[in-house]
Amino acid sequence: MRRVAIASAATTRFAKASEKPIFELACEPCVEIVRDFGKGIDAVMLSTCATEQYSSTIVSEMLGLKPKVSQRVDNLCNSGTNAIASAYAMISAGLCDSALVVGAEKAASEGNRLTWDVTRGAFNFPVHWAAMFAKAHMRRYGTTEEQMAQVSVNNHRNAAKNPNALFQKPVSIQDVMGSKKIADPIKLLDCSAPCDGASAVLLLGEEKAKKTENPVWINGIGQQTNGASFANTADFTKLDTARRAADEAYKMAGIKPSDVDIAELHDAFTILEILAYEDLGFAEKGEGGRFVLYKDIAVNTRGGILGCGHPVGATGVSQTAEIALQLAGRAGRRQVKNCTTGLVHNLAAAGSSATVMVLGV
Amino acid sequence: MRRVAIASAATTRFAKASEKPIFELACEPCVEIVRDFGKGIDAVMLSTCATEQYSSTIVSEMLGLKPKVSQRVDNLCNSGTNAIASAYAMISAGLCDSALVVGAEKAASEGNRLTWDVTRGAFNFPVHWAAMFAKAHMRRYGTTEEQMAQVSVNNHRNAAKNPNALFQKPVSIQDVMGSKKIADPIKLLDCSAPCDGASAVLLLGEEKAKKTENPVWINGIGQQTNGASFANTADFTKLDTARRAADEAYKMAGIKPSDVDIAELHDAFTILEILAYEDLGFAEKGEGGRFVLYKDIAVNTRGGILGCGHPVGATGVSQTAEIALQLAGRAGRRQVKNCTTGLVHNLAAAGSSATVMVLGV
Repeated sequence: MRRVAIASAATTRFAKASEKPIFELACEPCVEIVRDFGKGIDAVMLSTCATEQYSSTIVSEMLGLKPKVSQRVDNLCNSGTNAIASAYAMISAGLCDSALVVGAEKAASEGNRLTWDVTRGAFNFPVHWAAMFAKAHMRRYGTTEEQMAQVSVNNHRNAAKNPNALFQKPVSIQDVMGSKKIADPIKLLDCSAPCDGASAVLLLGEEKAKKTENPVWINGIGQQTNGASFANTADFTKLDTARRAADEAYKMAGIKPSDVDIAELHDAFTILEILAYEDLGFAEKGEGGRFVLYKDIAVNTRGGILGCGHPVGATGVSQTAEIALQLAGRAGRRQVKNCTTGLVHNLAAAGSSATVMVLGV
Repeated sequence: MRRVAIASAATTRFAKASEKPIFELACEPCVEIVRDFGKGIDAVMLSTCATEQYSSTIVSEMLGLKPKVSQRVDNLCNSGTNAIASAYAMISAGLCDSALVVGAEKAASEGNRLTWDVTRGAFNFPVHWAAMFAKAHMRRYGTTEEQMAQVSVNNHRNAAKNPNALFQKPVSIQDVMGSKKIADPIKLLDCSAPCDGASAVLLLGEEKAKKTENPVWINGIGQQTNGASFANTADFTKLDTARRAADEAYKMAGIKPSDVDIAELHDAFTILEILAYEDLGFAEKGEGGRFVLYKDIAVNTRGGILGCGHPVGATGVSQTAEIALQLAGRAGRRQVKNCTTGLVHNLAAAGSSATVMVLGV
């Protein structure tokens, strides 16, 4: 099987309600990639929930590209890693040799709203399901609100070192605990914020990738979809989708959880990072809350979704961009030393679908 | 490379303004496929321009599937073949073993409108660019309005044998020539009609496909994108995208145009079928108009887009479904005898992007 690597990655500043239209936003992180790698890029995959039509092709034209493949891919909050998985497959299968995967979103877009799932009645905001996961984990495993708050503290601290993050200031445990309660036990600083943003990665087939400096190989991809409605959730203390996606990604990459040095975990709410520790096999089941303090892997070094903001279609791409930069040794002042194996964990809609990718150098 | 085949295909009746919601429409052609192949399908790719979110995952849930991969793919009128190309790649690359590709559209959807391209000023309907192509071909090669009308006659005649086609009545040359002029020289019966519809194909990896009766192999895929705006069109007598996509598909399949027995050509307007004869190498350049009468391959046996209607995201899937049914010998009373090599030609937005697929048994 032909291997595929990430040869370049770029993310622009995430912001609240930028004035740029979605297409301009999408082009921004691509400009330097196209400058460096030329216009011979033969696939453009756009990850976005924006409702504008022919969007990947419009972005191609704006960038001066005439790719073979041009597609928009979406699957709500895990659109980004879905687009990367598609691009990986296209290159691996030989349909193209290179693919620019762009994620872009505007928070105000109609496309960000999931209106189909009415199983939650009036409790139809994401914070409502997050509260149910948090309560269940607290009840069964003794996880505390302070442990969840620590996730927010960690990720905001990392975001303060990332000039592209939406939030630039560290927060304290007291800040989180004292922030407005949204749906018990979830407080404002346990939640990520919708925002505008874009991120891009360039994937190359093995032959081209080997000619670049520091290619970061995509060694494993696992995906699982259990349904679109929250009503399918049988156990609120774990995400079955993430566990199955991770199992498959580890198997494909031929590694085990303890081999992972650095991970981007889908922390749209603090409880999700705690579940991820367990679902991905970094911590024993029930130990996620305590793992926050004694964890032995680098997590959400860019600031995660809590610190960077959550531009839906861009999130999975920006998570992957961070791991690619870290493994390539290009993460600047937030560089983690000696990391060679990285993981990306991307969820959608209460974890009803999940993608896990394993990258390596 | 792991080969991929189409093991099943189904299309439901295309209709004007059906009362079914998009998701119900999308499920319809899948029901028998899921019944026959079970619920172990591990990818669902939805091709649609509909603006509803998480749509492939909603369709998965409604069908009782829990696939690994769930993605919505779109690229306007050639969304369908793009989704099939993605599914092919996913299976070929080993990310999954089977993929249900569903195309569905409602004509009234906001998602069908391409609002970005303002290069045509007030002449911003598809019929305006179709008129420019037609005029250019008439001027340079002496193509006549009667020859274009013959395309409509042929495809409506075929549609009359297809119970799922929007139009069920044959039309005469006189009917076409006498129909309302929309944009000179294009008349009403030179144009396809937007409609509601859905179609689905099941793709299987080599090992599984070999255990089925009459698998139809995807032997070649070529794609080309030249831009999103009409202003990029340099020559109105050919479609560079289709030529390049075809060259690549033929090369991948190891065949030449004369090996093709049956083709679904993107006849959104009659002139496009004439251009396709030339772009795909079935006729010499400039001979497309005359080729309508003496063509030696079966074309648009289901009725094409002219006869079946044009539910945008479903079109490419329904074209592929027809070729798969014909090659598998399952096309019922419109079965073409002795066809072993088939071709699908799918365009978007004035041919600014194109996909060509070669199928074989």
